[in-house]
Amino acid sequence: MTRTAGELAAHLRAKLAGDANLIISGVASPESARAEDLIYVESGKHVERAAASAARCVLAKSSAGLAGKAVIEVGEPKFAFAKAAAWIAPPAHSVKGIHGTAIVAPSARLGSEVSVGPYAVIEDDVVIDDGSTIDAFCFLGRASRVGKNCWLHPRVTLYAGSQLADRVEIHSGAVIGGDGFGFVFGEGRHWKFPQIGRVEIGEDVEIGSNTTIDRGSLAATQIAADAKIDNLVQIAHNVRIGEHTVIASQTGISGSSVVGKNVMIGGQAGMGEHCTIEDGAIIGGQAGILPGKIVRSGQIMWGTPVRTLEKFKEQFAWSARLPELAARVRKLEEQSGGK
Amino acid sequence: MTRTAGELAAHLRAKLAGDANLIISGVASPESARAEDLIYVESGKHVERAAASAARCVLAKSSAGLAGKAVIEVGEPKFAFAKAAAWIAPPAHSVKGIHGTAIVAPSARLGSEVSVGPYAVIEDDVVIDDGSTIDAFCFLGRASRVGKNCWLHPRVTLYAGSQLADRVEIHSGAVIGGDGFGFVFGEGRHWKFPQIGRVEIGEDVEIGSNTTIDRGSLAATQIAADAKIDNLVQIAHNVRIGEHTVIASQTGISGSSVVGKNVMIGGQAGMGEHCTIEDGAIIGGQAGILPGKIVRSGQIMWGTPVRTLEKFKEQFAWSARLPELAARVRKLEEQSGGK
Amino acid sequence: MTRTAGELAAHLRAKLAGDANLIISGVASPESARAEDLIYVESGKHVERAAASAARCVLAKSSAGLAGKAVIEVGEPKFAFAKAAAWIAPPAHSVKGIHGTAIVAPSARLGSEVSVGPYAVIEDDVVIDDGSTIDAFCFLGRASRVGKNCWLHPRVTLYAGSQLADRVEIHSGAVIGGDGFGFVFGEGRHWKFPQIGRVEIGEDVEIGSNTTIDRGSLAATQIAADAKIDNLVQIAHNVRIGEHTVIASQTGISGSSVVGKNVMIGGQAGMGEHCTIEDGAIIGGQAGILPGKIVRSGQIMWGTPVRTLEKFKEQFAWSARLPELAARVRKLEEQSGGK
Repeated sequence: MTRTAGELAAHLRAKLAGDANLIISGVASPESARAEDLIYVESGKHVERAAASAARCVLAKSSAGLAGKAVIEVGEPKFAFAKAAAWIAPPAHSVKGIHGTAIVAPSARLGSEVSVGPYAVIEDDVVIDDGSTIDAFCFLGRASRVGKNCWLHPRVTLYAGSQLADRVEIHSGAVIGGDGFGFVFGEGRHWKFPQIGRVEIGEDVEIGSNTTIDRGSLAATQIAADAKIDNLVQIAHNVRIGEHTVIASQTGISGSSVVGKNVMIGGQAGMGEHCTIEDGAIIGGQAGILPGKIVRSGQIMWGTPVRTLEKFKEQFAWSARLPELAARVRKLEEQSGGK
Repeated sequence: MTRTAGELAAHLRAKLAGDANLIISGVASPESARAEDLIYVESGKHVERAAASAARCVLAKSSAGLAGKAVIEVGEPKFAFAKAAAWIAPPAHSVKGIHGTAIVAPSARLGSEVSVGPYAVIEDDVVIDDGSTIDAFCFLGRASRVGKNCWLHPRVTLYAGSQLADRVEIHSGAVIGGDGFGFVFGEGRHWKFPQIGRVEIGEDVEIGSNTTIDRGSLAATQIAADAKIDNLVQIAHNVRIGEHTVIASQTGISGSSVVGKNVMIGGQAGMGEHCTIEDGAIIGGQAGILPGKIVRSGQIMWGTPVRTLEKFKEQFAWSARLPELAARVRKLEEQSGGK
Repeated sequence: MTRTAGELAAHLRAKLAGDANLIISGVASPESARAEDLIYVESGKHVERAAASAARCVLAKSSAGLAGKAVIEVGEPKFAFAKAAAWIAPPAHSVKGIHGTAIVAPSARLGSEVSVGPYAVIEDDVVIDDGSTIDAFCFLGRASRVGKNCWLHPRVTLYAGSQLADRVEIHSGAVIGGDGFGFVFGEGRHWKFPQIGRVEIGEDVEIGSNTTIDRGSLAATQIAADAKIDNLVQIAHNVRIGEHTVIASQTGISGSSVVGKNVMIGGQAGMGEHCTIEDGAIIGGQAGILPGKIVRSGQIMWGTPVRTLEKFKEQFAWSARLPELAARVRKLEEQSGGK
């Protein structure tokens, strides 16, 4: 989409210093930008990169050092850049309309402007609301529901009954609604505990490639609005994730754990069953949280098992000094006449 | 399937207190149950939830507090619930018969009542035994074999030669039989060590979504009967997993390791090459086991590198008290006249 | 392919002791070998296994103990075995030619001897160079490029614009070029930072099953020649991996980290953003590297957060002796007249 610098400044409610008629047709880094690309400068140390760029329009806190550029002055250039990109260069779908090879059950209901890619399979009683795109090889199991303007990239599986609200984006290979992992051992073998709950995903959630989110056992697994989940993450049965929570790659959340709003979880973190992570907590990468643990609102937790970052740092520092501490004990022993 | 309370009590060989003619058509949690759903109460503290439920039939240790309900009295209500669910509400397959778009090689042999979903690909010399269901987008490579009553959910890959015994269930996105990860560096580059063994999976094994199990290099990778493997687990070449062993999500087992029977492995655990985990051992979540390590039968192991849970707890407790210990050493030094 | 022992010795530039006309048609372990299979003996302790094998031709450092066998004498038998296997038993493709159900966009350009399996989808402007095989269910997004003699196993996704050099092999379920995980929070919700860079993969790279490699945000994510990446690995946006580097299963590398040449990374290791791992470093399994950390060339690093293996061992040993150290401090306190 093509915009002018003036239109973009108005969209961002920001002041423009420079030519309002400059055409902007994309976004880029300073080094790779063409004249019509928008770039941004977050801090002073990157001003020279921007000044040397072919781009003619820059998002920056001020025009200083950017002579000759059209500068849209914003308080948070990186945020403004993300917002501008969503407006100038929204993601393009290669699929338009219902491909002739897509298998859509007669009982499925598709809204207006829904696209379904080649070899997608849409089972009975599925609902896909207006404007959603289902790419190639997606499998939408019976009675699953996709809201408005969702985007399922190629090869996403929704098991039967999965529920997606509006504007959910799911990347390739993700599996939503697989059976939870619950067995009862008896009479010499494992019996599957019923895994008949469903998965409910809120508005604006994004889910990364090859991530797995299991259906609830008897209740639902729930991901609230605007949660962002990276690649290869595991979310077990009955888990609830709060709004705006961000979960980095390869993290695993065990059954029935509850994660609050605005929580940040680093990569490869692991959480036992029935944990509670309150709003705004921060969980470090590779942290390990024991079953049943409660992390309080706003706490920053590290290590396995987790403790506060402050304690972790103190203990880690002492751990590094252990050989020295041992030598000091040895010296005291010698002074006191040997062991 | 519809059963009566009396039929169910007989199936469970348990005593029924209440109306033997009550109809039971599903299973549920106390809160979500309809009148015809079966619920269970594991311990006394949940009796009130059950009493307040719309369900008319309850599995419980006794009828106490459940006036007005039909109570099937069982020693292990959760186990009885799982067993009942398998009888009342067996999983439903949406695929029936061979879909017209499935590509089945002429040399493949399919038993009776085999179902193959849309766009599945069955290569030459594949054998699928009676009653198995192969869902959409599954790929069964040349000469792979699927036993009786197996269920491959949508989008499972079996590389050539993979062998599945009866009643194996594999979830969406799992990859069975990919090349093991073995290279020899020479003449300036990596050469692949031959990865020509196969994967052999025993009866009643369940494998989670997006899990990967590599083929053996020269021998086989083997998963024994009734092993249960969660999502996103990695099993490397030549590994052998024993019967009834349970492996939680995101665990990784390196090449040629041998895991015994009835072992329980927590989530995100990692095992180096050539480890031996003897029968009945328990490996904690995120535990790290060094290459070649032997874990003895029945041991409970934690941490990285693993040690017994007892030692782990003791060391962890002391680690938490390190700042205090250091202060005590400092005090001793001061008493002894400084360093 | 069938070769003689003499031909193989010539190919390996090695001396043959025995019948040069022996036919070799495969490779195997000593126990599973047929007469025509090639086996190898790496060290003396395995000579008896080889002597007892049905195989008639052996790669070994010397003929000692192998009377009756044709022995090809090589300095590095395992390496010679891998090299021989690549020559005698190259991987067989079950797909030949363009399957009738493959959907190939008219604007895609396919070289000679390209094979495309059933239900593969090749979008506009894709280029596939000579001799490459694209298996069933692969999705090659718009303008992606596949070099010569590549092999994409069933069900690989290349997002639009992904670039593969020659002889790249990608296993089932891998996702190349998914959006990087980058958001800016503002006005009450997350905005996606543009993820419009691409993925560039060098010659001879192998990528494991269900591994995910995200596209760059504004620049490219780059994997250099001969890098070998195992299953379920996560490579984030803008990461660069050097030549010959080997990354074991379930490792995660966060955004903008740079890994040098000939680096070895164990399984389940995790790396924060903007790390630098210099050439030849070794990162232990489950190691955790904090954001921004620099690991120097040739260092061997362990633990979370990483430290040198030497320090890790020393600290770990002291950690195991902490209860004893505490007892010694207690004794000193008693000697000095109590606390």
